[in-house]
This record gives sequence, C-alpha cells and structure tokens, in this order.
Amino acid sequence: MSSWIEIPTNSDFTLENIPFGIGSAGGNPRAATRIGDNVIDLDALQKAGLFAGLNLPEEIFNQPVLNDFIELEKPITNAVRARIQELFAANNGELRDDEALRVDALRSVSEVQMHMPVRIGDYTDFYSSREHATNVGTMFRDPNNALLPNWLHIPVGYHGRASSIVISGTPLHRPKGQTKADEAELPTFGPTRLLDFELEMAFVVGKSNALGTSVSVEEAESHIFGMVVFNDWSARDIQKWEYVPLGPFLAKNFGSSISPWIVTMEALAPFRSASPKQEPKVLSYLEMKKDHNFDINLEAIIETEGGASKTVSNSNFKHMYWSMAQQLAHHTVNGCNMNVGDMCASGTISGPTPDSYGSMLEITWRGSKPIAMPDGTERKFIQDGDSVIMKAYCEKNGKRVGFGEVRTKVLPAT
Amino acid sequence: MSSWIEIPTNSDFTLENIPFGIGSAGGNPRAATRIGDNVIDLDALQKAGLFAGLNLPEEIFNQPVLNDFIELEKPITNAVRARIQELFAANNGELRDDEALRVDALRSVSEVQMHMPVRIGDYTDFYSSREHATNVGTMFRDPNNALLPNWLHIPVGYHGRASSIVISGTPLHRPKGQTKADEAELPTFGPTRLLDFELEMAFVVGKSNALGTSVSVEEAESHIFGMVVFNDWSARDIQKWEYVPLGPFLAKNFGSSISPWIVTMEALAPFRSASPKQEPKVLSYLEMKKDHNFDINLEAIIETEGGASKTVSNSNFKHMYWSMAQQLAHHTVNGCNMNVGDMCASGTISGPTPDSYGSMLEITWRGSKPIAMPDGTERKFIQDGDSVIMKAYCEKNGKRVGFGEVRTKVLPAT
Repeated sequence: MSSWIEIPTNSDFTLENIPFGIGSAGGNPRAATRIGDNVIDLDALQKAGLFAGLNLPEEIFNQPVLNDFIELEKPITNAVRARIQELFAANNGELRDDEALRVDALRSVSEVQMHMPVRIGDYTDFYSSREHATNVGTMFRDPNNALLPNWLHIPVGYHGRASSIVISGTPLHRPKGQTKADEAELPTFGPTRLLDFELEMAFVVGKSNALGTSVSVEEAESHIFGMVVFNDWSARDIQKWEYVPLGPFLAKNFGSSISPWIVTMEALAPFRSASPKQEPKVLSYLEMKKDHNFDINLEAIIETEGGASKTVSNSNFKHMYWSMAQQLAHHTVNGCNMNVGDMCASGTISGPTPDSYGSMLEITWRGSKPIAMPDGTERKFIQDGDSVIMKAYCEKNGKRVGFGEVRTKVLPAT
Repeated sequence: MSSWIEIPTNSDFTLENIPFGIGSAGGNPRAATRIGDNVIDLDALQKAGLFAGLNLPEEIFNQPVLNDFIELEKPITNAVRARIQELFAANNGELRDDEALRVDALRSVSEVQMHMPVRIGDYTDFYSSREHATNVGTMFRDPNNALLPNWLHIPVGYHGRASSIVISGTPLHRPKGQTKADEAELPTFGPTRLLDFELEMAFVVGKSNALGTSVSVEEAESHIFGMVVFNDWSARDIQKWEYVPLGPFLAKNFGSSISPWIVTMEALAPFRSASPKQEPKVLSYLEMKKDHNFDINLEAIIETEGGASKTVSNSNFKHMYWSMAQQLAHHTVNGCNMNVGDMCASGTISGPTPDSYGSMLEITWRGSKPIAMPDGTERKFIQDGDSVIMKAYCEKNGKRVGFGEVRTKVLPAT
C-alpha cells in the first residue's frame, strides 16, 4: 500500500501496520497512530468528521488510555484501522488536501511524548520458550534433565506486578534487595550485582471473559487486541535467594518496560507461522487446529552511556513453544477472568543458538563468557548507565510491520 | 462509647469501629459505614451537610469504590471517622432528631447489598505464618528441616490475581485444571479434587509510593488504610503439579473472597500486640522498633448445603511471624510502587495447635484426619454446595471491633 505521506524505507510503521498508542505534544495524552515518522492524532481526525459513519462514541480517542477504545471490540477497532489506511492511501485527498487539519493532526515523532497505552489491570508472565527453559534448567539444575516434568504439558506462567510496567524511555534504578552467596551463612542487603534483561513480547487482552468462564484456543486470538515488545527486567541474585517456593517477586517487580505502540493481531496476521512440534501431545483444551504463532524478528542491544552500542541477541517470536492462544486458553481454563487491557508476556524468547539467547544470563552463560563491547569494556550483566534497547519487526514478500523499540536506561541504585 | 442507635451485644460494629465499605439498597453503590445492624449512607450524610467543615470534595462518597476517598489520606479519613462517632454518640441530636434524614441514610443490614470496597490495582499474597510454613514443609518436604532457608530472613510473598477477588456472598465454581497423580505418567484434566480454603487477612494500601522509592517499617502503617478477612481459595492438586518453579497460578486465580468492610488501622490500634520473637535477627531494613502485630481472633466455619455447620479453625492474626509493616517495607525495598487500593494478604494464618490451623490441608493433614460434620458426613477438603465462612474480631477490656464475615458457597464445576 502506498501513501501520500512519506514512509522511509524499512520503516516499521507502514500503511499495513497502523498501531495504536497514547501520545502527547504539549496537550493532554490521547490516542494516536503512527505512519512512517508521523504521529497522527486520532481525536483530531474524529473531531474533523473523518470517522463519521463508524458510529464511534464521542471523545473515544480523547482519553489517556486505550481501554475504552479497545472495549468497542474488533468489528469497530478494525474498521477504524481500515479507515485510517483509506485516509492515508496515495489516492485519497480527504486529509491530504486539508492543510489546516493536516498540520493539526500530524506531528513528527520527535515532537511527541508517548505514554502507557493501556491501564493494565493484571499482568501475567509466561515461560514459553523451550530453549530458554532448557538453558536455565541446564545451568541451575541438570543438563540431562533440564526441563521440569510439567513444562511440556503446561504453558507455565505466574502473576507479575502491573503497577511497575513503564513505557519506553522511562529510566529505572538498579534495585536493592536481599541476596545470599552460596558459601555465606547469612543474606546481605544491597544493590543487585546481576541485573539482567529478558527479551519478551506481550499481548494486550482485547475482550473480557467473566469469572467462571473460559476462552478456548481457537477463540483466543479474538480476545487479543495486539502486541508490544516487553523487557522483563530481572535481578538474578535477588531471584535466586527469594524464588523458592512461591516464585520470583522483588527480582522482577522493580520495573518492566514496554514499547509504546500496540500492533494489532490483524496487522500481524500475514506473518502467522507454525509453532514448534508439540511432543508429547498436549491435553485437548490446549490443542491447536491451525497455526497460532508469528514470525517476528527480535533484537536486543546494549548501549553504553558513552554511546558504544552492540547487538547482543537476534531472536524470533516464532521459536515460542507455547502460542499466545494456548497461553490464554490455559489462563482461563479454571474460570479466571481477564479484562481489557490486561497484559500477558511471553517469557524470555531464546532461539536455538547462543546469538539468539534472550537474556544476559544465557548469552554470557552466567557470566562465564563476557561480551566485548566496542569501547573495550566487557559485560557479564547490565551496568549502571547502560541502556537496553529491544526491537521487533515482521517482514515477508516486501511487506514490513514493526514495533519500533523499547529503550530503558539503568540508573544507579538510590 | 454508647450510641443512640442500638448496637447488639457482641456486635462487631461498635462505635469504636466505624469501618468503610460500598453498599447499595436499590440505588447506585456508594460509600457506607456500619454501626450495629445499620448501614449508614455516607453520601446522604454529606449532602445533608453533616460533614461540613471537613472540606471534603463534593460527591466523594457517591462513587462505586473507596479509592478516591482513601486517597484523601489519614488526616481527612480519620476526621470523617471521628465525625461519624460524634454524630452517633448517645448525646448527639444532629442526626438522631432529624427523622427524614435518619430514614434516608440508615438501612437495615438485611436490605443492603455490599460490593467490592476498592478497585484493586495489584494484589500480593504473603506466606508469613511460621506455623503454616512449617506444616507445609513437614508434609511435603522434610519434617526435620521444614522451613526453607530463606523463610526466616524474607517475608516471602508472590503476586496474585486482582481481577478474581470477589466480595463475600459471591459463589465460586469449583475450578478445573491439570493434575498429575504421583504414579501416573501423564497429567489429566478435570475439576479439582482437593479444593481448600486459606484463612487469611489482607491489608488495603492507603498511600501510594512512587516507582523507585521505598517505605520503611516504621512508616509502613501510615501507608495502610485498613484490613479485611481474606479467603485465599486453593486447588491443592492443581497447585502441586503447576507450582515448580514459578509459583502457584491457576491453583489460586479462580477466585479469592473478602469481607466487605475495611476496618481501619485506627480502629485496630487498641489491639496492637507483639510479634513472635524473630531469631535469627532480621536485616536492618526489616527491624521493628515497636509492636506491629495485632490481636485479632479468627474463625473458619464449614456449612453444608443442608445447613450443618462446624467451626474447623480458631486462629489469631497475632501468630504472624512477619508483620504487615515488615511485609510492606520488604515489598517496596526494591523500589516497587504501591497504589491506593492495592491489597496484600497475609498468607494462611495457622496457630500452634491443630484446632488453630488455617487450611483443610493442615487441619486434616492432607486428608488423613477427616473432619466429622454434624450431619454425619466427613470433610477432607471442601465439597460442592459447602459454604466457607470466616470471621474476625478484636476484643479487649470490654471493647469489641470486628470484621463481620466473608462467606462463599462452592458451586459445581461448569
């Protein structure tokens, strides 16, 4: 699809994409989309009458989060997306030829501050990459028996903290906590020494289910609005000491970072791919009748305070053993209710080779293989002043749909 | 304190209490308090001018949750509570002598439906009873080494699901899920066979802290608005198969039940008590300079569909090894942000003797010591049609402050 506004080569934000986010440029934060390097104020388009005929509620875009918009459900939200594609198509003059509105509604991405796109009710983190679970099991348990007995039967997940999920660009302080060295008798308190990222993606729930009801695998994608890139920050030494028997807690809840644009499932549909073969056979409530995975290229980059930058991982979402559809079906099979705006992250997405591992724990194999940075320094884990940048995009038959990036700078402990 | 309205002997809702909740009697759900068997519409009192002088925002009580009221912070919320005590004091005629307002604002508790008192952002469950952790460790691990190495150093906690916390009176369906018998090769799917309650209490956060900041032990109670009784429903067979390594998930998130009235920390202050001695010494960020525990009597009752009822546990909140102040200090020591309305549950509160254990798992010792019900049936765990009722109250020097009850009926699996 070609547009009358410039879309740079290799832009993530093509006319095929049309993601949704919340932006502000001096005014109040409100709903926006992005095409090329332009952020488009959807409230301005609505007030100019360009969504007339869609029967949208008044002020639906003039809100600080997308929850109410998403609650309109896919027949409406997809119609909005299709209408935006129509408005920006090369041959459409409705907005192109209205200079005053164009100036009002379109801003350069550099002028716009992005905000959290949704009010997240509950957040769940899964653990769905077989390669990641195998690497962790090999390091910390038994290389010959790396996967725990339940892993091939259950899309293992756990609850995380919603309040500390922050938007790309928000710096995080190195967390403090209890750690205990193996040889020490007692724990000590201080800043984590093993600060790590986890390269993940997350989906945003687009349709609620009531308490006591379940969502089947084949219905599940109709309950998913879209996806973001997700950095599940982790303090490995805090995690090691606290996590038995009830799971990670302070090692995770000091912050998680997301990319600002929610890319819809409809934009991702052309990049659907098969999941890895599931053997042993899964229980029937987890069986998939079609492909529910997606081919999404992932990259993680460390950038030092001085600007030295290195790609430390190239992975792909298609490696996920458990699909989002299976995750959501599992999450609700006991009647657990999901609400619009809830977020479910994938777990670290590691590929089969060391250059595709999704955390420093795996990339440096517990620090035994440090990474050489271009400025001559080494990284076993993340240092104060470092920024971690994660990017994601799909590409097929010359079409590209991407997520932009999630970028987080680490500040020293307070 | 004596009142001009009747307060039955042994009522939990004395003039010393004045809890806050959300009720409706035909109209919209809004803020209320309870004295004796009367529910008092706070919006009606405000509109009649009885809170004039407190500078409350208009319509602060005419809302479906208490979050905005609680955000006014303790100097204001305590002044409201004190003013209610004044209005209902035996010698005060302001409301007593205004029959029209009295009829409008006071309803019998039997006419009022209670609703969730707060919009819960995030929910955390702790594991702070030494007796409970010891019982679980003895049953499932090593009786001679029942507590895990971190337990005496960390108020162990984990994130739970906020969306499925329901108000007393809301029935829950028996959840379905994956379980695996020890001797079986593969898991199976079906309704849980080991449905259990956990007798807990929870506190409601009353003051936010920003991401990256911490709340000290001695500040912590000023960040707690009040408490409720909490039934942390658990499916033991699902839990056993899923919880390693990331903690309980579907075994818990099908539902948790709370009592409707938030009893303030100020009402609980006269019942302050010492915590059990903490040995080994805790790290300095967890040290307490004064008593932060509370003497709250707890009772759990099973009532069959036919009405046969039996008290199966009498416990006390004072048994808690880790105080709420320590829990909140620990939760935020890494910079995790808490928001007004967030809820933190205690974990099962077991006392030292079998009649004070706080779950069927412990009371029947994994089903090996079934409970005889008055109708001749037995209970190892909870059956379809059973209701579980939990009650809590404080009593000292003839003064009583209580929580009422949380009552939940179990329906068959869907």
